[in-house]
Amino acid sequence: MKFAGSHILSISQFERAEIEHIFEVADRMAPYAHRQRITRVLDGAILGNMFFEPSTRTRISFGCAFNLLGGEVRETTGFEATSLAKGESLYDTARVLSGYSDVIVMRHPAGGSVAEFAAASRVPVINGGDGANEHPSQALLDLYTIRKELQHQGRDGIDGLHIAMIGDLRYGRTVHSLSKLLCLFSNIQLTLISPQELRMPAEIVDALRSAGHTVVESDTLEQSLAHVDIAYATRIQEERFATLDEALLYRGRYRLNKKIYTQFCQPNTVIMHPLPRDSRAEANELDNDLNDNPNLAIFRQADNGVLVRMALFALILDVVEQVDSHARDVNWYTERRFE
Amino acid sequence: MKFAGSHILSISQFERAEIEHIFEVADRMAPYAHRQRITRVLDGAILGNMFFEPSTRTRISFGCAFNLLGGEVRETTGFEATSLAKGESLYDTARVLSGYSDVIVMRHPAGGSVAEFAAASRVPVINGGDGANEHPSQALLDLYTIRKELQHQGRDGIDGLHIAMIGDLRYGRTVHSLSKLLCLFSNIQLTLISPQELRMPAEIVDALRSAGHTVVESDTLEQSLAHVDIAYATRIQEERFATLDEALLYRGRYRLNKKIYTQFCQPNTVIMHPLPRDSRAEANELDNDLNDNPNLAIFRQADNGVLVRMALFALILDVVEQVDSHARDVNWYTERRFE
Amino acid sequence: MKFAGSHILSISQFERAEIEHIFEVADRMAPYAHRQRITRVLDGAILGNMFFEPSTRTRISFGCAFNLLGGEVRETTGFEATSLAKGESLYDTARVLSGYSDVIVMRHPAGGSVAEFAAASRVPVINGGDGANEHPSQALLDLYTIRKELQHQGRDGIDGLHIAMIGDLRYGRTVHSLSKLLCLFSNIQLTLISPQELRMPAEIVDALRSAGHTVVESDTLEQSLAHVDIAYATRIQEERFATLDEALLYRGRYRLNKKIYTQFCQPNTVIMHPLPRDSRAEANELDNDLNDNPNLAIFRQADNGVLVRMALFALILDVVEQVDSHARDVNWYTERRFE
Repeated sequence: MKFAGSHILSISQFERAEIEHIFEVADRMAPYAHRQRITRVLDGAILGNMFFEPSTRTRISFGCAFNLLGGEVRETTGFEATSLAKGESLYDTARVLSGYSDVIVMRHPAGGSVAEFAAASRVPVINGGDGANEHPSQALLDLYTIRKELQHQGRDGIDGLHIAMIGDLRYGRTVHSLSKLLCLFSNIQLTLISPQELRMPAEIVDALRSAGHTVVESDTLEQSLAHVDIAYATRIQEERFATLDEALLYRGRYRLNKKIYTQFCQPNTVIMHPLPRDSRAEANELDNDLNDNPNLAIFRQADNGVLVRMALFALILDVVEQVDSHARDVNWYTERRFE
Repeated sequence: MKFAGSHILSISQFERAEIEHIFEVADRMAPYAHRQRITRVLDGAILGNMFFEPSTRTRISFGCAFNLLGGEVRETTGFEATSLAKGESLYDTARVLSGYSDVIVMRHPAGGSVAEFAAASRVPVINGGDGANEHPSQALLDLYTIRKELQHQGRDGIDGLHIAMIGDLRYGRTVHSLSKLLCLFSNIQLTLISPQELRMPAEIVDALRSAGHTVVESDTLEQSLAHVDIAYATRIQEERFATLDEALLYRGRYRLNKKIYTQFCQPNTVIMHPLPRDSRAEANELDNDLNDNPNLAIFRQADNGVLVRMALFALILDVVEQVDSHARDVNWYTERRFE
Repeated sequence: MKFAGSHILSISQFERAEIEHIFEVADRMAPYAHRQRITRVLDGAILGNMFFEPSTRTRISFGCAFNLLGGEVRETTGFEATSLAKGESLYDTARVLSGYSDVIVMRHPAGGSVAEFAAASRVPVINGGDGANEHPSQALLDLYTIRKELQHQGRDGIDGLHIAMIGDLRYGRTVHSLSKLLCLFSNIQLTLISPQELRMPAEIVDALRSAGHTVVESDTLEQSLAHVDIAYATRIQEERFATLDEALLYRGRYRLNKKIYTQFCQPNTVIMHPLPRDSRAEANELDNDLNDNPNLAIFRQADNGVLVRMALFALILDVVEQVDSHARDVNWYTERRFE
């Protein structure tokens, strides 16, 4: 694919080389995201940050990424009555809203809605999550984090990785998307740890195996953690169950904590989680007693979202090679950030 | 009127020469709205985009217009609990909020509220819609669209126009305001097509006739469309009826579609609609099968809103003559916009 | 304390010299807040304006203050579903959100929540109000207003001041915080006018007396107003009472109006109110018939909020000495502001 002017709708649209190119561009965004330098490359550009479903962190992360490139953000935050409620088609909404900005990020509760919107848009559209369907920037930031954490350990690349995914593998959108992305790489070992009823969908397991990967499914946590490079914990997606009672059957089933980590993981196993984690005592799938463990990558993972989203904006607006020439040093206090 | 520092509260405040001046300034905003050039003329200025009633597109359109001139936007989006609910007067609200910005756009559900607010404001206020009362920028963008579409056909000016207004002419605020604006021009023919119960208010029809215009009222669509330059369709304003049952009597009554257009309209009749159009099968007052018709001006109409709002900001903040001297070329990908 | 990189959580963290330093910096912000000059000193910086409880004016005031320094604002407006509702800890929320901005303002309904958030944040945090607990920028702008109004009368400094606080002194957070701040100064006379049941909490009265101040409590308005420099009226905090019926016992109990002011106050007694004032006929604790009185400082008080918040941002981001070197004249119409 050509990035300039493209929509970013699904991780399926990428080939491996394109993924790697996004990650290289994300690496180049680090000085700006870390406030060592600022760039004004998109000074005058407008992002339409259209969230037709509430989301604080994804919305702010995209908006921040655009601001860091120098652009402005106009947005909706999901609780407004929209013209969609008056019978307006997504086609009309797209034709109108795409006249107001240079690029659009859209989140919408209905699967497929963002692709339909994009087809009518006159500017590039990034899918910020369309229901249970796709959320490509989340999958990209997860894989980018894996790559970066392994690099930090002196390992080069994602091929040969051993990853454990833990928890609600049935309803968790992020583990589905990450698995699909991993199909582009070689020789991955996946250990899928979930209750029987919340197993990874069969078609995803099949796809992983067709890609030549090794998949082991298990319903116990402890013994499955040996030899993994990445332990990817997830929250029970309580809001997706038919009833809360059904969801409560699984609350607290797996709890990755300091004791288990110390006993069963390798000393450098990286801990990830798409966040938010459920820290209520009865859930606690990833315990706060691991907060001081240097291998806990969950906040670096969130930070990486800004880098990846900056990269996507820079690529589809075709300014990657201009970013550094519109830059200068930061002139305000930033030391706290690096504590 | 003098534009610098003025409030824009009602279309009644304008004379014909002023309308034409706004349109000339709007024309000059096109390179910026089309992202061929950017201007930073309002760099450092702040718009208070105060929507005390929800609205996505009008709010975003005003905010985008201000960003395109280089300014910043602070806003409320209508669902917040406000001090008005704690017994605060509009006078107090205006005195406080007008300390926070250089210009305010205000939408509020109560008719007359924006004028009351403006009287106490220390900065210029633009009425973004006060209930069923006024929404002057919408009327201006409608008339601007008519002028531009006719120019595109090689016709100069609005005088002598033949326009059909179709649908809910009783509750539709936009057709009321547009009719009032047309009173400033000469020799207009209006064909008003509506159910008997939803006819244009008598005082507006009287005003049109007093201005020397020809008004014909009808309750059938097809035969009334011959010889019109502009067919302006509207949605049944279901939310304004006493009961939904009453509104449903009129849903789907008039449906302008490809078949009717081809059979009854002139080949260059321009189709307008204030949007949103109701595209549900049972309503569909303007069919999607006209989407490819080059005379369908409804999305150009929405785009023109940005130009007109930029012009209003530039005029009341008195920077019209500075816009081009703060400009430079756009440095990011914009080709998709011109497909 | 050192300002650069500090959190602003409570007025208790300040010593007198620091308060005075904040006020000197606030004075230097006046040309920018009054739109005589603009500064771009924070061009490229991002404020995370995190309001987890609705507030129009405090939110806009902080956002405007940051824009006036040249920075960008990303925000939440309190009605969004947040990850906190999915069991996320404030620790996690802080770790994530503090990766998205250079400084955070946070409002939250739970007392102590902002301090807990700040402890985990990687960037400086300003408390924008944590329930009934603290709202330090409000207390600072109140005291700054007192200082400035007295200066305008030719008096130098706050020591020796006589202030009357009127109304709901039990639940009114602003009078509590202002009283605590006054403990840093010398020789203050306080006249506390409230119904018996809504008296100032005893520990605050004790603190004032321990600071050497004179405190007189009263339940009648008129006779208590003689010789006061500042009459600080407050609204009955109806939302804090157990029942509305209980609150209604006090509605309209004290009404400062033109007749009472003229008869009982000194001709230069300054009138303050934290706003919003309840202007419904049955409440009306500060009558609109005083709106033309030049000693009515309530809107100057709101305006001063912008100056004080600009000063706080400039101090904690350590750009005070750079503000003027990133400045230029305003190039748009601003005369209305000075009417």
